[in-house]
This record gives sequence, structure tokens and C-alpha cells, in this order.
Amino acid sequence: MNKLNIGLFGFGCVGSGLYEVLNKSNLLNATINKIVVKDPTKKRSLSPSAFSYNKHDILDDPEINLVVELIDDAEAAYDIVTTAMKNGKHVVSANKKLIAEHLEELIQLKEKYNVSFLYEAAVCGSIPVIRNLEEYYNNDSLDSIQGICNGTTNYILSRLDKEGKSFDEILKDAQEVGFAESDPTLDIDGFDSKFKLQILLLHAFGLITRPEEVLNLGIRNIKQSDIRFAQEKGYRIKLISFAKKIGEEVRAFVAPQFVRDDSFGYNVENEFNAVSIEGLFADRQLFTGKGAGSYPTASAVLSDVSALQFSYDYEYRKFKRNKLKWNDEYKIRVFVSTSEQESLQKIEFLTVEEEFISSHYSYRIGEIEIKQLNHQLYRENPELFISFFGEGILKDLQKQEEFVLAH
Amino acid sequence: MNKLNIGLFGFGCVGSGLYEVLNKSNLLNATINKIVVKDPTKKRSLSPSAFSYNKHDILDDPEINLVVELIDDAEAAYDIVTTAMKNGKHVVSANKKLIAEHLEELIQLKEKYNVSFLYEAAVCGSIPVIRNLEEYYNNDSLDSIQGICNGTTNYILSRLDKEGKSFDEILKDAQEVGFAESDPTLDIDGFDSKFKLQILLLHAFGLITRPEEVLNLGIRNIKQSDIRFAQEKGYRIKLISFAKKIGEEVRAFVAPQFVRDDSFGYNVENEFNAVSIEGLFADRQLFTGKGAGSYPTASAVLSDVSALQFSYDYEYRKFKRNKLKWNDEYKIRVFVSTSEQESLQKIEFLTVEEEFISSHYSYRIGEIEIKQLNHQLYRENPELFISFFGEGILKDLQKQEEFVLAH
Repeated sequence: MNKLNIGLFGFGCVGSGLYEVLNKSNLLNATINKIVVKDPTKKRSLSPSAFSYNKHDILDDPEINLVVELIDDAEAAYDIVTTAMKNGKHVVSANKKLIAEHLEELIQLKEKYNVSFLYEAAVCGSIPVIRNLEEYYNNDSLDSIQGICNGTTNYILSRLDKEGKSFDEILKDAQEVGFAESDPTLDIDGFDSKFKLQILLLHAFGLITRPEEVLNLGIRNIKQSDIRFAQEKGYRIKLISFAKKIGEEVRAFVAPQFVRDDSFGYNVENEFNAVSIEGLFADRQLFTGKGAGSYPTASAVLSDVSALQFSYDYEYRKFKRNKLKWNDEYKIRVFVSTSEQESLQKIEFLTVEEEFISSHYSYRIGEIEIKQLNHQLYRENPELFISFFGEGILKDLQKQEEFVLAH
Repeated sequence: MNKLNIGLFGFGCVGSGLYEVLNKSNLLNATINKIVVKDPTKKRSLSPSAFSYNKHDILDDPEINLVVELIDDAEAAYDIVTTAMKNGKHVVSANKKLIAEHLEELIQLKEKYNVSFLYEAAVCGSIPVIRNLEEYYNNDSLDSIQGICNGTTNYILSRLDKEGKSFDEILKDAQEVGFAESDPTLDIDGFDSKFKLQILLLHAFGLITRPEEVLNLGIRNIKQSDIRFAQEKGYRIKLISFAKKIGEEVRAFVAPQFVRDDSFGYNVENEFNAVSIEGLFADRQLFTGKGAGSYPTASAVLSDVSALQFSYDYEYRKFKRNKLKWNDEYKIRVFVSTSEQESLQKIEFLTVEEEFISSHYSYRIGEIEIKQLNHQLYRENPELFISFFGEGILKDLQKQEEFVLAH
């Protein structure tokens, strides 16, 4: 068993959770030697003498063989993580933004400097999804993966479904109870869910994507009328990170979806996360747990630390086989609603199945080219709410494939 | 990657599933070289020339480096598995009875002959529970594990809850549709759930138990009045494999439990399996999936085969640390019902919370010593239905501990 001398960056919710967890479970051959934080004036649970404010105190310390990076700032994290690797230190990180933006480079670096790089806590907190994709589902028989990976949006959507309040009111409440950040963009616009989806795509299908390649629609534009529409039709609306393999191609996106009570996500409520993994033979597996919070996230970090004692590392076997292709040219069935009827024209429908028009609320359901949708369109048109349909989404994508094959 | 030449024992539901799965997913460096079956007269999907009927064709073949054992007969399986290990072959098995009855010896043998022994398919089919306990939850911070590990009893209980029929009628139906064996004893009397619990105890808590040490109460004695009682009180009845660590001790049993809609198992219906893992820090993780069936079980076998290509093996770290003790002397809150009032006397209550008496149905709720309960009592008194309470069971066990500590 390797003795681990940890240099910890960050002492927020997860960092201080890890500190407690490591102290309480004295079963690991691991100690936190140094803690580096940014702001000397911030009040913390340990005395100021426990902290350093200079990153080199960790990065240049030859005693420290593991850097645990738990800070918010993805750019500073990039600097820390890459320097740590170059200095021959193993790295554990929970920073999905950092990882999603620099996947390829980080894998190259860790191989070049022969260190381990683990990040189970970056996706769905305490749910061991990366480890399972990497180890258990390592034989390429996966068909699809769906996740509710962002607790903030799921909490907001759950409350929208139960209360008559508007999105803005619920968001404000969520911020007050600490379930949403003061700048909620990363969460409510689906960026956080997308970063996690990108990491899932790598470990499920061996695919490296750029953030700008993967569509993320958020929930910021949702109206009370959309919630009522969903309820009348027996749906709930969930923000889902979705990926599906068809033949040798993978399609993936983050978007709100209408889901029925027999579909993935319907019963995943409040701040809970869930991942559904469907395989050719294993049928559907569902993993549910807490996706955020101090202890659950810290426990995922702890499990990575524990695995490092036995020299564990991700092997990226699927990525190295590199068989699957990215596909973002296909048709999909969507729901588009608006308070201003004429805005419906902004989206070009190939076929229209249903259209509802009234003075204050209108919607259209039909098929469109997914290429039409992009984050800019979503952000520039706050009157438009766009949602996919969970039921039949797999079938629709398959049908499209059959159509393509038939040509 | 190791090239695996497989000798397959058994070509029933799972064996033939594995054959198809291996053929369809040509991603593994593994081939089935020989298949040995018992009955030459049985009709099978492959021509008779594909089979051998002599176990030595596999066991003595130096080319074969992996034996996959998928037969029903636990005694014949013991002979096959131990001989295979002695002949230096890796073994994958789905035989929970074999494994539960010979845990210690099998671990010794596999270490002595330096072979791998994997059996993910033995517990909850496609749900990767053993691998996760072994690898991800390897740092001793687990508090409890609960499982619905037997699809047959869960299917029967789901139908009992929905239909007005008797246990015997539903069992007969289940046998006709292939969801129950012609001899249902192992399933309905909780033996199958117990064997799986024993395997979970080893990988969750490092504890080796003898089958006769672990209490298993089944569902054979359930009456329609018990179902109605549960429904009136907002419960469902589930057969749960239960294990909890308190301090340095572990308590475990298989018994029917009344569960509420916010407790483990309530929403696990029909033939589905589920496992809930609670940790000191990770909060509760829930894994749901198909526990039986040809492809789901075969996919778990496939994942073991796939892991063997990378020389994976269970490490039994918790067992080797050997810290936890088995405890079967404590009090528990139970529900005992009967059609014959005087039978209630057969169980000695320490305290009685509730008692209901009528000409055709009576029950008592209260605290008893768990030592009073044993499988013989359950089998010899078909008029008695015994169930625990899911809600508060963790608390009750904890309270008991406080009581013990206070002495």
C-alpha cells in the first residue's frame, strides 16, 4: 500500500468535508500534509495557521505525492493540476469544467509523467459512475447513458412541479438555501451537465469532445405554462445529459426532456442525481445517490484516494481503441413554446405534429434538424422554451438511423 | 490482454445467453472452446456435436485457461470449480449456493493455486454490486447494505400486493410463466437471498459466515390478511437481505419487511433487484437492475470474463483485515400473525406494543430476542407469518446497541 502525502487545494464545502472524512476514517494510509487556499481573510473551521496561501508550498514539496484539487476556479485549477503532474505528483480532482475542457491534454500529460489522475467526484458526486464505466462496462456493449447530473436544476425542476411559483422565484429560494450559486449560469444553462456528459462520453464510449461541440439547452426559459402542459400530459420535465450509440456513431446532448413515469428520471427528485446505463445485454442499470454536498462528494474523493493506495488509474481503453464517431447531424422531435406566438418562426420545423396558439402561450411539436439548435439561440431568445421527449427519444434516434441507412 | 480459452459448464438459460453474448460482442479476446452439459437427450439451440458430456474434456484440457461454471447443481459445481482451480484454471461462477457454502475454502484454494475466481453474476445478476463493494467501497466506511436479491419472491410479492389472489395461486402462476422453479424452496424460503447476503457480507464487511448462522425467513406463510394489513398501514412487504454494522459488529438476516414509500425497496417491483449501500459519508446509494434472466446474468458473466483479460481478481482486503465480528444476539421489533390465535404463544415477546385478535386472524407486534427465530420454527409453523419493520429497523438496532453499551 502506497503511503499518500496529500497536498490539498481548496477548503470549501468539499475540501473541508474531505478533511473531516479523512480524519474520521483513520483507515487510509494517507494524511493531508498541507492545505493551500486563496483568500486569507475568509473564516474557516481550522485556525489560519493550518493554511498556506502559496501554491508552491504544495507543488514544489517533494514529500507530497498526491495533489487533491478542490477549488472552483477552473483556470487556476488547470495551472495547479498540470504543474502537479509535471512535478510527478498524482492528482485527484472534482473539477468537471477543467476536465471537460482539457481532457486530451490531461490524459497525455498524466501518461507522459507517469502519474495517476482520478476524478470520480466530478460526475454525480457519490455515485461511482466513472469507475463502473471504466471497469465494469469495459467491453463496448453499452448502448446508451442518461444522467441527471446536476442537483441544482433538478431541485428547481422538482419545486416548479410541486409549487405554483415562477422559475425566478424558485431560483431565488434555491440561492437562499444554498442549493444554487449566486451566479447560477453553469447550472441552469446546462454547462455543468454538459461537462459531466463529456466525461461520461469518454468513459462510456471512448469519445473526446470539445465543449462547443456538445449542445446544452438549459432550463432558464421555462414557464409555468410549460409545467402545466407537462402535468396535463402526465410528464415531468427533467434536465438530462443524454448519449446514445447507434452503429459506430454516438449522439449526445444536454436538454430538458419530458419524461413519463416509466421513463428514466421521473422519480429522481430534488437534489438527487441518477445515471441510467443501458447495455446490449445487461438491460438497464440505474444508479441513484447524492450528487453534491460536502460529505457525499468528499466520499467520492476519498474513494479515489483509497484507490491510489493500490496504484489504481483509469486505462482509457475505449478511447485508445478509438472506434466510435461523433454525430451531430440528425433530426429530433422537439417541443417549442413561447409567450410570443411569432417567435415560433425562429425554429424551422421539418414536420409539425401539433400546434397550439393562444394570446399568451403557444407551442409547436414536431421534427427539426438538431443542428438548428445551439446555445446562442437558447440564450438570445428567453421567450422560447425548448424540450425534447424522453419517451421515444431512443426510438426516434434509431428511426433516423434507419432512414440514413436506407439512403 | 490475456487470451481466454473458455470451458463452459452448463447450457441453460445463462449458459446459452453467454454463448450468444460472446458471439455477438466480438470485442473480447475470448472464445468458448468446449461446452460440457449433463443430459445428452435435452433439446438445445446448438447441434449435439457442439457438446461434450464428460467434465474431464474441459478440466483436463491444458488449452483451456478459464472455466465458466453455470450449472444448477451446487455439489457437482463444487467438484468442477475446485478441480478447475487445482488444475490452474481461472474460474467464473454464478452459483451462489456453492459460493456461500464454501467461501473460505474457495478463497484458500484460489490463492494456493494462484488463479482468479470471480462471481459477479451470483448476486443481483447484472448489478455490479460485488465489484463496487470490492473496489469502490473498499475503505471500511460502510454502514449498511440492503438488497432485494431474489426476483422470484419480489415478483410474487408485487403480484400479491396488486391482486386479490392467495400465495399458492400466484406461485402457481409464476411457475407457469417461468418466474419460479418447479421446486421453489430456495427462492420462497429465503435461501437464495441468504446465499447472496453471505456473499455481500464478505465483500461489504469482510465477514465469512456459515449458512446455518444466518437467519432466513421466507414468504411461504404469507396470508391475504397480511397483505391487507400492510396496505391499510401504507406498507409494502418485501423480502430483504439486510446487513448492518454497529461499532465493530455486524448483524444480518433475510426476512420479510414492511417498508414505507420512503424506505428502501418500496418502489422495486416485479422481477427487479436492487441494492442499497449506506456509508458514513456517501449517504445512500441505490443500484437497480435486472437480477435474473438469460442476457442480464450473462452480461455479468461477460464482465467477469472481460476483467480476467486484464488479470483482475478480488482482493478480499476487508476479510484479510478481519476486524468485524458477527453478532446474532439482539432484540428486534417484529410482527407475527396467524389464523390460529393460540399459535401466537409460540413466540415469546419481551414487550407487546399491539395485539389484534379475531376468529380468523390475529397478530401481535412487539420486541423479541432474535435468537428465538430460526428457519425450523418458520417451516414447522405454516400458520405463522413473521415480518420485521423496515422503518426504524436501523434505529432499533442502534438503540439496542446503546442499551448494550450502557451496561
